[in-house]
Amino acid sequence: MNDHMQTQEMLEAIENELHRSVADPGESELNQYYSMLAYHLGWEGEGAGPEARGKRIRPLLVLLTCAAAGGNWKDALPAAASVELVHNFSLIHDDIQDNSPLRRGRETVWRRWGIPQAINAGDAMFTLAHLSLLRLEETTSPEITTRAANTLHQACLQLTKGQYLDLAFETKDYLPLNAYWQMVGGKTASLIGACTELGAIVADVSKQRRDSFREFGFNLGLAFQAQDDILGIWGDAALTGKSNESDLIAGKKSLPVIFALDQGGTFAARWAQGKIQAEETKQIASLLENEGAREFSQESASQMTDKALNALTEADPKGQAGEQLISLANRLLSREL
Amino acid sequence: MNDHMQTQEMLEAIENELHRSVADPGESELNQYYSMLAYHLGWEGEGAGPEARGKRIRPLLVLLTCAAAGGNWKDALPAAASVELVHNFSLIHDDIQDNSPLRRGRETVWRRWGIPQAINAGDAMFTLAHLSLLRLEETTSPEITTRAANTLHQACLQLTKGQYLDLAFETKDYLPLNAYWQMVGGKTASLIGACTELGAIVADVSKQRRDSFREFGFNLGLAFQAQDDILGIWGDAALTGKSNESDLIAGKKSLPVIFALDQGGTFAARWAQGKIQAEETKQIASLLENEGAREFSQESASQMTDKALNALTEADPKGQAGEQLISLANRLLSREL
Repeated sequence: MNDHMQTQEMLEAIENELHRSVADPGESELNQYYSMLAYHLGWEGEGAGPEARGKRIRPLLVLLTCAAAGGNWKDALPAAASVELVHNFSLIHDDIQDNSPLRRGRETVWRRWGIPQAINAGDAMFTLAHLSLLRLEETTSPEITTRAANTLHQACLQLTKGQYLDLAFETKDYLPLNAYWQMVGGKTASLIGACTELGAIVADVSKQRRDSFREFGFNLGLAFQAQDDILGIWGDAALTGKSNESDLIAGKKSLPVIFALDQGGTFAARWAQGKIQAEETKQIASLLENEGAREFSQESASQMTDKALNALTEADPKGQAGEQLISLANRLLSREL
Repeated sequence: MNDHMQTQEMLEAIENELHRSVADPGESELNQYYSMLAYHLGWEGEGAGPEARGKRIRPLLVLLTCAAAGGNWKDALPAAASVELVHNFSLIHDDIQDNSPLRRGRETVWRRWGIPQAINAGDAMFTLAHLSLLRLEETTSPEITTRAANTLHQACLQLTKGQYLDLAFETKDYLPLNAYWQMVGGKTASLIGACTELGAIVADVSKQRRDSFREFGFNLGLAFQAQDDILGIWGDAALTGKSNESDLIAGKKSLPVIFALDQGGTFAARWAQGKIQAEETKQIASLLENEGAREFSQESASQMTDKALNALTEADPKGQAGEQLISLANRLLSREL
């Protein structure tokens, strides 16, 4: 089977497992309850379809890691579904917290059903994630299941710490770089580290290899966020100035911005004067680049990527899945996928 | 040891276990993150103390059931803390959803720290609940731990279904009685049923006795809610008319109200005309009583209590803890506790 076919098979199995985890209760009183979850997952409602579903990168990482660690990836499906559901729970709550009207081009859950129901839909998605994980007992053992549950819950705890910092940072004028990495570590990298650790847990490898697989995922997550921050200012969508897609307009304290604020130059002076307008984005992106923010961010992303790939080498991935894992990491960082 | 001393010992052990579950991360950046949780649990901030903590009834039910089922109640402490944390997570989110400014006489978390941080504090409390439960592996076995985790997560799922219904009912003019019981079953009774089932799971009794213990808790929860609904209209605080404590003023679709709406008499006609004012509560409470709503609700509470006590008899509770369980049930229903 070639790489593409294998990935397709995994993605279909992931979608089936998600449907198993988020099943329609089939009671007419609970129709809307189910619809909110199915809508958010891209299965139902206006705009439903592959575009609305996201790339399912996290569950794919679980399955590929499991296979690369020598396990049967099908055994890891309950864990794969659980990380995707945790990710989506956090998006539903994030959209309320950030007051975001749109997600993947569609109305967010809170805009459609109101904040109270959206909070509850997120709570339901979170609970379904944990129930999904516990189905590992059918494919592995109670010992592996409790180990996996601990890993997932610890990542969720880091997620809430990262989210706390992200919300707290909104009102701060200045952020040290280590606070940025702490926030990104919690909000993004911990869950991706849990993905690769979960794959290794299901494959039942040594503690040392489990740790290396987790380090791979965690640093991949940090690199991915740095890369995402670069694209948020210098990516095509950000630079057109026609859309509101630039992180500069949103006032987001991303890596290039934090670096430049620390420099205390022309950009920092402009930032202190208030909200950046759409027509300024190109000019301010150039200013940031001249002050070294782009190079610094790319250097950071590159360092994290090296760390990730070194950890992966130590984890000693095997066979076709090992190569796919490296190729997925590379595609993720160049954002082709 | 007499009953009172035993209960005191359990309550102290519960508080210690809660502190173990919700530990200060000890990082200065996360001070406020911890403070929100400690404040809500009644440990910190203005008005902190026993009054702000609630009665810890749910964890007490876990421990007493474990002892009455023949287990060592200390083994059940991680499960006891987890149900209390689930309960408190749901209160933090509830207060946002209901727009409630006060809880146990103190400002709610969202009023103090804003909605985005309060959503996240609830998510953190929920995650800590699951991490707490997994510590059962230290006191029992991986098999018992996964069984307990399934029980807790299923109760959480029912909680989100009940909460969905509660929010959905707000905009409905008419509710059938079975919808009320479905909502209360999810929102209140499922978690209390999980408390008694968890105690039995830790004691490792037969499936049949586990089910009977759960039935005891579940029906106790239904009876408790019916009783609470009666007090919300005819209790001392509700009848004074000085405070806004009557459920009639809040427009709450409680059991007596749903019964009377179904009768379609004078009360139903008044209800349809709009919000009930503080000065009317005494008169409308009398009207409801004349239309049979109080008697009906008391009869319902009494039936559920009988069901609960029958299930408890089938569960065959032993010794001092068994008697304490019956006495706790009775005190709970007369609201002395």
